[in-house]
Order: sequence, then C-alpha cells, then structure tokens
Amino acid sequence: METKEIALEELDADKFIAEKIEDISSNVGNGLAINALSGGVDSSVVTILGHKALGNRFKTYFIDNALMREGEPQYIVSIFKDLGVTVELIDAEEIFFKALKGLTDPEEKREAITRSFYKDVFAQLVEETGARYLFHGTNYTDVEETVAGIKRQHNILEQLGIDPEKMYGYKVIEPLIQLRKSAIRKVAKSIGLPEELYNRPPFPGPALATRVIGEVTPERVRILRDATKTVEEELSNSGAFQYLAILHDDKVTGIREGKRDYGLQIEVRCWESTDAKIGSPTRLSWDVLDQLADRLTTEVPGVVSVTYNITKKPPSTIEAI
Amino acid sequence: METKEIALEELDADKFIAEKIEDISSNVGNGLAINALSGGVDSSVVTILGHKALGNRFKTYFIDNALMREGEPQYIVSIFKDLGVTVELIDAEEIFFKALKGLTDPEEKREAITRSFYKDVFAQLVEETGARYLFHGTNYTDVEETVAGIKRQHNILEQLGIDPEKMYGYKVIEPLIQLRKSAIRKVAKSIGLPEELYNRPPFPGPALATRVIGEVTPERVRILRDATKTVEEELSNSGAFQYLAILHDDKVTGIREGKRDYGLQIEVRCWESTDAKIGSPTRLSWDVLDQLADRLTTEVPGVVSVTYNITKKPPSTIEAI
Repeated sequence: METKEIALEELDADKFIAEKIEDISSNVGNGLAINALSGGVDSSVVTILGHKALGNRFKTYFIDNALMREGEPQYIVSIFKDLGVTVELIDAEEIFFKALKGLTDPEEKREAITRSFYKDVFAQLVEETGARYLFHGTNYTDVEETVAGIKRQHNILEQLGIDPEKMYGYKVIEPLIQLRKSAIRKVAKSIGLPEELYNRPPFPGPALATRVIGEVTPERVRILRDATKTVEEELSNSGAFQYLAILHDDKVTGIREGKRDYGLQIEVRCWESTDAKIGSPTRLSWDVLDQLADRLTTEVPGVVSVTYNITKKPPSTIEAI
Repeated sequence: METKEIALEELDADKFIAEKIEDISSNVGNGLAINALSGGVDSSVVTILGHKALGNRFKTYFIDNALMREGEPQYIVSIFKDLGVTVELIDAEEIFFKALKGLTDPEEKREAITRSFYKDVFAQLVEETGARYLFHGTNYTDVEETVAGIKRQHNILEQLGIDPEKMYGYKVIEPLIQLRKSAIRKVAKSIGLPEELYNRPPFPGPALATRVIGEVTPERVRILRDATKTVEEELSNSGAFQYLAILHDDKVTGIREGKRDYGLQIEVRCWESTDAKIGSPTRLSWDVLDQLADRLTTEVPGVVSVTYNITKKPPSTIEAI
C-alpha cells in the first residue's frame, strides 16, 4: 500500500471504496483474513471493506481488553449485527492487566498493549483461524506521528521496520493509510455506516490506558471509565472533534465535609480540529465547565479536583500519553 | 490570645490596632521579640504591629528559603526600608533544599519546611538575639483548616498541642488569629502599609514548595518560579482573589518541531473568594486563557501542556498540596 496522502477535497469516496475492494480481493486471493474492530471509525470502515471484499473469508473480532468505555464491546457488536456483520467478542481482560502491571512509562505501557494485542491475543486467533492477513485501520496521521517519533501507535509496524509476517506470522493490510480522519468519515458515510459510529469522537487504540497517567490497574481504569462516561455525556452536544478525561497520577489536596481529602485529579480535554494534526481547546462556556467539575467531583469516587486543558496542539498532543 | 473570630463588618481597624499594640506591650514587657516577614499581608501587618509596640526591641527577619517568587526577598526588604523598618535578610537556601531532598508526600514536605524554619533557622536566631517572643501572622482560616485536619499550616503550633516554648525555647504571639484575610487587609490599610503589599495575592507560607507536586529540587523550583512570574503578570489585572501556577510531577506527551517531547504540565488556578474559606474559579476570558497557555509553553523551558482548574472550593482547596 502506498503512503501518499489523499486529501479530503480530492477524495471520491465511492471510487475509493470500489478500488480498495478490488485491491483487497486481488491481494488476499482465496486466503482468509481477520481484523480487530475497536469501534472507532477507522476499524469500522476496515471491517465493512473487508466484509464486502471477502465475504465469509473475512472474520472480525472485538477484543475486550478491559480498557474500553462502559458497555462499549456489547454496543459495537450489536451495531455490526444490525449491518449484517458478525463480530466475535474476545474477553482478554486478564492478559492486558497482567501485561500492564507495574508499568508507569507511557512508551512501555503502549508496548505492553501492542505485545498483548498482537502476540498474546492475535497470534492465537491467527493460529486458530489459519488467517494469513490481518487488516488494520492505520491512518495517515498515525504514520506521520509514529515516523516523527511523537508517539508509538499500536498499529504501526511496517513503518517502524517491524515485519509482522516474520515476527507474528501474518501480513498486515492497511486500506486507510492514505487518509486523514475527515476523509475516513466521508468514506464511512458512503460505505453505509450509521452516523452514531462515524461521527463519534476518536478513541485511542490503547483505549483508556492512554488516559491513565501512571500504573494502569483495574481500579484506576474503573475510575477513568466513570469519568469518561460523564465527560462524554456533558460534551456530546459540544460539536467538538474529540473530548476526553485523563486520570492523573499526581494527587492533590481537597476538602470533604470539612476534612482533608487527599484525592484524585481528572483533566478534561476537548478539541477543535479537522484532522487531529493541529487542534485547539474548544471554548466551552463556563456553565458547561462548572457542570463538568461538579459532576466529576460528586459522581466519581475519590475525585476532588478537575482541570481543563487550555493548550493548543502543538505543543500539546490530543491525548496525554 | 483568643480564637473567637472578629468578622470584617464588626471590625474597627484603628481600635483593633491600638488594642493589639497595648496587648503586645504588656505581654512582652521589656523582653526582646522577633518575627519572620514573608511579604504576605499577614506577616507584614504583624511586622508593623510589633515595630509600633516594641520599637527596637522588635527584630524582623526575612528568611530566604529559596522557595519564593523571583526577586521577592529584595523587593520586600526595600518596601519596609521605605516604611522605616529594618529587615534582616537571611540566606537559608541550602538548609531548606537539604531538608526537602527526596520527599514527595505533601505533609512530609510541609513538615520538613516547618522543621527547617523553626528548628534550624529560627532557633539559631532566637539564640543569637536572646529573644523570648516570636510573632506569627496566623489567621483565623489557618486555624480552622489545621484543626479540621485539611492541611498543616506551618505556623500553627499551639492549636496542634505543640508547646513552642518547651520545644523550641520561645513563646509564640499571634496578633491576627481572630481575623480572616479580608479583615487583615483592612487593618493593613489602616496601619499604613502600601497598597502593593496588602492587595497582593496571598502566598503560602511554604511558598513555591506547596506548588511543586513531587520532589522539591532547585531545578523544579526554578521552573515553577518562571511559570509563577508569567501567571502573575497575566492575571494581575484579573481582579481575582488569588492566582497561582502549579508544577505537576506527571509528565505528558507534547510535540516540538514535529518531534515527541515528553514534557511538563503547569496547572493554573485563579480564585474568586473573599476569605479563602470558599471559592470558585475566575471565569477568565478565552483570550486570557490562550495567552497563558501560549506564554507558559514558549517561555518556560520543558512545559508542553497547561491546564486551568475549574473546581470550586470545596471540594478543591486553594493550593494543590
């Protein structure tokens, strides 16, 4: 696959879809292919492309790494069921938390997730299914940022000089690698995905682990999952490109019922952006900010402090780690 | 001294000053007294009260613990010189950093500062001067919060059942213990302090160490001092009760010149309050917030991310630790 960008304004979505289906068919031939669906727009488009090109020779798995939004796995599986695509749900909670235990460095955490995902979970699925092709939702921004050394996306292997065929036993196909997010949304609409899927805010591959600063434990993911639910409820009507909650490792002093409460801090980010390449904080109203702080400090146990990120990208990034 | 509050509306500042001068004279008698001036409104008022009551039997020291705002020690000494009060500057940088080395727990850090302040620095000054009385700017909010266990103020000893005479060899006098901040400002004005002193934002006793999350090193204090300067410049016209910068220990991912920069995060707080007992974040304009983020990420080396605290007190506190 080439990595020359196709910009939104030059994209003919129907033509792109037809060409990709053709490409996939000729590349995979009579082989069996699989992919992991995360529920984000990228992997959702890839799932439909693979399904259209290969029919029942394409198998889609939803790997529940326990790092997702509340109810996410079941929600996504049911949406695809309505589209006529069977998605198999894989419970991998234990594998991921075991791999993350004791890690605090962001790159080590990402690497542990990549390793668990590919080596521990996917390698086994590949073996069981006999698939030789793995489809990925890698997009153009992911490639740029990984190559630039900004962050290690969990689905960029070839760009880093890692040969997945040699290392893991399968070949990676990345149909969306020439598109940025806005172009992928256009393809998603053309290919028939429901708006609730292609217009949802982007969610990082390593999911909530990317938003837990410090060690990723089941307890801390639970706290962040609660905070994420509140933030998404409050900001879903903001029209923003993306919005998220981050659980800090730093603790801060608070007061509860007149007593010291050395507690947790949640950072909220809400972005204006078209392609995640550059962005600026959404100029939310003070009523919304007040409501966010009030809800997070009353509904999420242990949280005594809430901040809102006011930095542009660059020098910030969309996610915290 | 009693600890019944005198509210702002019932305070006759001139009468209060006359009574306190009378009290001090009769309590100290012919003894020698000393105090530490921090430059905040509380210790500034105490300095003038002591000077008026005792003349040259009252000695004022400014202890430079290296945890102050940029240029602060020299600035404060010069203001008091203009008021006819000689303040002796004590360089105690080494003592404080040595005591703070390796500490990350907020209470341990506060305790190390208290210990260095009283035991290592003040005990020596008391011995040298032969003073038997130490004056303190403790106010009514400090007492409430310490007794409630919210935080340990560095100047509250008797309320915690510590007898400073037995422990450190001197008696503590706290002339402002019945007043909250707004009442102290009124007294400051009546007693002749310049507005630049009594209208400046409150600054915590343990100074910048309270605003460094994690270990307090000379390097980290230097970074926070730079950030504090910027925040104070940008918010001095905000009309807010208090505004401050906090250096987080958590690092976050940023981008500089297209490359990953795993850097520092500064949290800005700006408070609307009359007495520090309750407060809410100042509803700053987005232009001000943008300017803050832009300046902090360009002027303070290593900073890639800036947040603004949106939580009320309670459940937050004014300072972070």
